[in-house]
Amino acid sequence: MSRQNLREEAVELHRYHAGKIEITSKIKIDDAKGLSLAYTPGVGDVCREIVEQPEKADTLTARGNMVAVVTDGTAVLGLGDIGPKAAIPVMEGKSLLFKKFADIDAVPLSLDTKNTDEIVSIIKALQPSFSGINLEDISAPRCFEIEERLIKELDIPVFHDDQHGTAIVVLAGLYNALKVVGKTHKNIKIVINGAGAAGISIAKLLLHAGFKDITLVSLEGVVSQGEKWLNTAQVKIAEETNKKRITGTLHDAIQEADVFVGVSAPGVMKQEHIKAMKKDPIVFAMANPIPEIYPEEALEAGAAVVGTGRSDYPNQVNNLLAFPGIFRGALDAKAKNITVNMKVAAAMAIANTIPATDLRPAYIIPDALDERVAMLVAKAVRNAANQEKKGIISVS
Amino acid sequence: MSRQNLREEAVELHRYHAGKIEITSKIKIDDAKGLSLAYTPGVGDVCREIVEQPEKADTLTARGNMVAVVTDGTAVLGLGDIGPKAAIPVMEGKSLLFKKFADIDAVPLSLDTKNTDEIVSIIKALQPSFSGINLEDISAPRCFEIEERLIKELDIPVFHDDQHGTAIVVLAGLYNALKVVGKTHKNIKIVINGAGAAGISIAKLLLHAGFKDITLVSLEGVVSQGEKWLNTAQVKIAEETNKKRITGTLHDAIQEADVFVGVSAPGVMKQEHIKAMKKDPIVFAMANPIPEIYPEEALEAGAAVVGTGRSDYPNQVNNLLAFPGIFRGALDAKAKNITVNMKVAAAMAIANTIPATDLRPAYIIPDALDERVAMLVAKAVRNAANQEKKGIISVS
Repeated sequence: MSRQNLREEAVELHRYHAGKIEITSKIKIDDAKGLSLAYTPGVGDVCREIVEQPEKADTLTARGNMVAVVTDGTAVLGLGDIGPKAAIPVMEGKSLLFKKFADIDAVPLSLDTKNTDEIVSIIKALQPSFSGINLEDISAPRCFEIEERLIKELDIPVFHDDQHGTAIVVLAGLYNALKVVGKTHKNIKIVINGAGAAGISIAKLLLHAGFKDITLVSLEGVVSQGEKWLNTAQVKIAEETNKKRITGTLHDAIQEADVFVGVSAPGVMKQEHIKAMKKDPIVFAMANPIPEIYPEEALEAGAAVVGTGRSDYPNQVNNLLAFPGIFRGALDAKAKNITVNMKVAAAMAIANTIPATDLRPAYIIPDALDERVAMLVAKAVRNAANQEKKGIISVS
Repeated sequence: MSRQNLREEAVELHRYHAGKIEITSKIKIDDAKGLSLAYTPGVGDVCREIVEQPEKADTLTARGNMVAVVTDGTAVLGLGDIGPKAAIPVMEGKSLLFKKFADIDAVPLSLDTKNTDEIVSIIKALQPSFSGINLEDISAPRCFEIEERLIKELDIPVFHDDQHGTAIVVLAGLYNALKVVGKTHKNIKIVINGAGAAGISIAKLLLHAGFKDITLVSLEGVVSQGEKWLNTAQVKIAEETNKKRITGTLHDAIQEADVFVGVSAPGVMKQEHIKAMKKDPIVFAMANPIPEIYPEEALEAGAAVVGTGRSDYPNQVNNLLAFPGIFRGALDAKAKNITVNMKVAAAMAIANTIPATDLRPAYIIPDALDERVAMLVAKAVRNAANQEKKGIISVS
């Protein structure tokens, strides 16, 4: 299907259905008795139960399965700051995917404010209605502060999908790619191109998962301690990455690297970069829709494994593999946070959906529509949450 | 069914279904093409359409049919300030009724703040996601200020159902009751017992509908200009009501009244009060579940027509007759406000669902579950909104 046809069909599909989601009833009211049970006076008794035991809100109302998908519309897909109204189609899409893959009721909320304090206080005030908060398409560096503060101040899970969703799927892909090329040790050299929310979050998760030699590269150059152009988030991550204090550009960082992770811009990865990498380079080129380097070119230049953000190439890094199962597992475990242990468990679960015997360069990441994945991720996340609760593994 | 049985069955119904509403998908995703249309990359094209023409958010997303049902849990049913979590069952009930009677997608939002400024600013920030705001169970006098400010500051309809819903159905009942007793002139004497949000709102709507002789009575006594105990809202309404400056108690106000409207407390209306009224007294005793006077007693004392808030007596004043059709009509007309004209039109539509030949003392208000009502109310409200837009009737 051509790009133009896709555009027309997508717009028509949205127009025909007037959006993608609706609020429906789980209870039928056919007569006065039905009304007296679901509404007055019976509903008053249900309210009283919750007054006596507030945690019953999670079993007597839809709250226990309700997640808010919250955006301010400042970093939507590749479109940038398009505002809260124009962001709704993406939020509804997310809501639809939450339902399909994890049977979660997700309410899209597009906020008409970019003020960090205001966003935090709005979401705090909404806490009685929701059991989880999925932050979406909020621009860096505000997204970091908003997530951090909400994690501290709320007692329900808060998860900024743009940061962690991609990171989890990259980690899953990396586990399998390393098996495919036979490099199982963790002191491989990883270069992340792109030092915004996604790049920094990938770096953090890979560090937590035990990878030690990570270097980030931003548009301004290699992220290295002391560089004057670093923003707050970059200053922090610089302390834990690039131990060799490489400076310069992607060209300098990529020398002898084992893994390239691109969350940056179309075409910035060249064949010469791949040729400068160690044997059997692993390349995740996730700029969308045009990757940092097209898979054909990367493979021609010697890449052993290539992943992209696109569905029309093998190994699509799609956070759809992560967020539904992660929230399902967190809700089922009644977790108050989505911890690093839970994220790493999710990544391993995604990786393990592909049996070792099926692993090959063109199949290290399961299909985005593989419905088993969310279920297996949910189980792994729930187990990790429960183990943390029981003190079997330490909370991190 | 006994009260105890009803309680158990209501709680069990809510537990069994884990609440009453869910977020479902209007579009199925079965394969990669489906995903590319409903989510990336197709959804980006839909976002772009809205960037170019923001009003398209109402046709390409669910926004055009989305209403937020917002509470702070401070005045829930007869339960009072039970907090936002315990209020959820009522909000979900509302959501379910919006869907059943008007096919509106209503999202229950229970806010963890009682601060007027904060509630106003949260709802303002949520405006990109909704085409209407139904305020619910917010205590007086904050509910007045919140509604007034939101009506000024938002360009979508804002409607505090506890104030206006009941008022509209009372007006509808009054129209028909007056026909039944043959008093069609508007200088009848009306006493409203209860001078909180509902009582004041009923007084305002009746004044707008042309009734001139209205007196409110609060717990402290008859609302009369100059009384020191009046709150701000009561001071205002005192200017337009009780022209004869009656002071004292219900006993003083009710002498020679044609109509009693009770939104107060169980049992406060006595048979002697009814006997002191003019011939063919009309009595709306809406305290719930125990009315100001039981219909049997009122009829015995000479009442010509009696309505209550209960479903097990004739003439139930149930705002379910109003809010679904009012929002449906307002959304369909793309009205920016729900004006007095629209409210009066709604009341007349409710009254007119009962043919003149069917009117009788025990049938002046249609059954709450009569599905024609919402449709007819919607039509009347849409027409009123369109006439205001075209300048056929003046906006009030």
